[in-house]
Amino acid sequence: MQIGSDETVNKPSIVILGAGYGGMITTVNLQKMLGQNEARITLVNKHDYHYQTTWLHESAAGTLEPNQARIDINDVLNLNKVSFIKDKVISIEPEKNQITLENEKLSYDILVIGLGFKSATLGIPGLKENSISIGSIDSARLIREHIAYNFAKYSYEEEKDDRRLNIVIGGAGFTSIEFVGELANRIPELCKEYDIDKAQVRLIAIESATTIMPEFDHTLVEYARTSLESRGVEFITNARLIECNEDYVVYEKEGDQTVIQTKTIIWAAGVKANPIVEQSGFKAKHGKVEVRDDVRTQDYDNVFVVGDCALYTNSETGNSYPATAQIAVQAAEVVANNITSLIRGNELTSFKPKIRGAIASLGYDDAVGMISNNRKLFGWKAIVLKKMINNRYLYKLGGIQLLLNKGKFNVFY
Amino acid sequence: MQIGSDETVNKPSIVILGAGYGGMITTVNLQKMLGQNEARITLVNKHDYHYQTTWLHESAAGTLEPNQARIDINDVLNLNKVSFIKDKVISIEPEKNQITLENEKLSYDILVIGLGFKSATLGIPGLKENSISIGSIDSARLIREHIAYNFAKYSYEEEKDDRRLNIVIGGAGFTSIEFVGELANRIPELCKEYDIDKAQVRLIAIESATTIMPEFDHTLVEYARTSLESRGVEFITNARLIECNEDYVVYEKEGDQTVIQTKTIIWAAGVKANPIVEQSGFKAKHGKVEVRDDVRTQDYDNVFVVGDCALYTNSETGNSYPATAQIAVQAAEVVANNITSLIRGNELTSFKPKIRGAIASLGYDDAVGMISNNRKLFGWKAIVLKKMINNRYLYKLGGIQLLLNKGKFNVFY
Repeated sequence: MQIGSDETVNKPSIVILGAGYGGMITTVNLQKMLGQNEARITLVNKHDYHYQTTWLHESAAGTLEPNQARIDINDVLNLNKVSFIKDKVISIEPEKNQITLENEKLSYDILVIGLGFKSATLGIPGLKENSISIGSIDSARLIREHIAYNFAKYSYEEEKDDRRLNIVIGGAGFTSIEFVGELANRIPELCKEYDIDKAQVRLIAIESATTIMPEFDHTLVEYARTSLESRGVEFITNARLIECNEDYVVYEKEGDQTVIQTKTIIWAAGVKANPIVEQSGFKAKHGKVEVRDDVRTQDYDNVFVVGDCALYTNSETGNSYPATAQIAVQAAEVVANNITSLIRGNELTSFKPKIRGAIASLGYDDAVGMISNNRKLFGWKAIVLKKMINNRYLYKLGGIQLLLNKGKFNVFY
Repeated sequence: MQIGSDETVNKPSIVILGAGYGGMITTVNLQKMLGQNEARITLVNKHDYHYQTTWLHESAAGTLEPNQARIDINDVLNLNKVSFIKDKVISIEPEKNQITLENEKLSYDILVIGLGFKSATLGIPGLKENSISIGSIDSARLIREHIAYNFAKYSYEEEKDDRRLNIVIGGAGFTSIEFVGELANRIPELCKEYDIDKAQVRLIAIESATTIMPEFDHTLVEYARTSLESRGVEFITNARLIECNEDYVVYEKEGDQTVIQTKTIIWAAGVKANPIVEQSGFKAKHGKVEVRDDVRTQDYDNVFVVGDCALYTNSETGNSYPATAQIAVQAAEVVANNITSLIRGNELTSFKPKIRGAIASLGYDDAVGMISNNRKLFGWKAIVLKKMINNRYLYKLGGIQLLLNKGKFNVFY
């Protein structure tokens, strides 16, 4: 079966939107699997780099150079096989097989949507204007600079403004915990650099659930909580942010409202799928496109969705899979296979993800994780495994070269 | 002659206020020259570190780690001979031989005032509130962070605010030129780090004189101007700042007023002696205490003034010497000698500074200088000499140990 074709060169045009985990793995796998005469492949992304979302918390805390968390797209593409367009997606018209970018229009025969997530501020007044989310290289750099700038200003000013040393984090889930863990390690260094007594700095995470990391086993949660509290992190659970301002936040817990003075609000409590998907008319549930077992949308045989924009459901249990890098990468591998099958007229296969567990780092020297068979990991074993998983991804994406450039090898702290 | 004495231990109390170039060299020379039984020596400073004012422009531009420009005071003091008090001087009462600090009162038999300079904002509306001066470790760090923060914010924000990339420097004298030279080298790195096109960044220095570096020979000025302009620096001479605001500055040139949109105003055009000196009743001229040839004040035989608080006049020509580190260090050497003479009943000697010339760096790879016999230096020869002068100072202050820790040895770029 040969679906669609380009009039001038008579080969199908594959367009991949977004260079996150899903988009990148789809693209590099396609460039390996397809011959130059089998298809034209085009990747569209608003930046000319891919970044590791799972490392952003380190860049935001200032413990990892942001450039270490990103990869130039052209460094991993085979430009004989793939064209890269740096542009922003405005809308998709699946009826016309067309995409509108900020600067041009594109048509496709096969489309892969991997447009990722945006932060969801849940209608909390002032949150959007006064917080920064851990969501991109740009925002991670800004968080790092925002904290350093406030520390520098505190040292400099005659009348000390203590709000500069209070850092409020919205949420105490996975991303928040990983960020807070790094930041708790970074604070003593920052204090030394800026001549500030570290006892004056407060890190406060506010979580609406009754526990931190509600998705984790309680043994792991206890371990994480002890590790972080011993480094000065304060958790306020069962509480929700109800107002954010330039200089303070208000949270509500058990009917009481409390004000925390702060100049720094980091939002790590909610993300949603890129709204372009729903706006473009794809049938969506909580903003995500429900995909078939072969990772195509329900309505279009030539449109695949990978990563956070897709809702993958386990057809046996009816449960949906979490929006993780792990799932995005596995789905992308199936998408690349299925696109190759479409072009070559073969059968499509079903996406059956293997959940390999999750590891949350708690700073450079501690972590907790749950792996297959509900085995729990703590401390350096968890760190080592997390770095190995990262390194494995880099190898998949760009081979040994990329692994050597960007890999994390300092596993024996 | 034995002037003053401590009732309990019967040895004179020497108090040195300020740990700048003058105060530090006085203190370390005294601790070498005087025996433990000859005097009690006390150094007072608001920070527990000394810093190299002449290196601050590099820390402000972000090319030198601020900690590299400072030295822990306790690392160079012999604590068997010198007591260090970290406190802020509030006032001096020379009639009573007494000093009021923020937290205690001190009495002295011999006093050395080395309280340095403050920035002088010359009554320009909004300048004090909206600018940062290159005057301390705190302010240098803040300048570095202010610039980085605005670059980070520019990358992050949806609606780009170009004011974040315009940096206005008040003045184009020695300090300004050295800062601008470093910053011109740093900008391309910052642009790379924050994904900003460097053609969008403007560095604009506004100078009231008809030329940059008015104190320098015109051949050197031309060289410096060409070096800096080729790296994108804009000079507006014969112009003066007349208003500063959070988002813009206004300058006047030949009767016309012009607005420059900016979020960053660095003030490098005026300093004045620490006003505590004049407020404490010392006879002052332009805020500085006129000292005798033996570096004592006109009115008090037991009070010396070193560095920027002193007005040293060449008794032969009637001209006063400039407020430089070079002069402060040489005066401090005479002060230490003369205090030793006072205590031992010897003759005091006169301060006859040797002006060894001046070298202005124009970034890490260029400099101009004028040395003895009006010899001019350009480029790497000037850089090497400047680093040698710095290293010689470190050796004077803390011996080989300090030189190895803080010296600049990368002289062969």
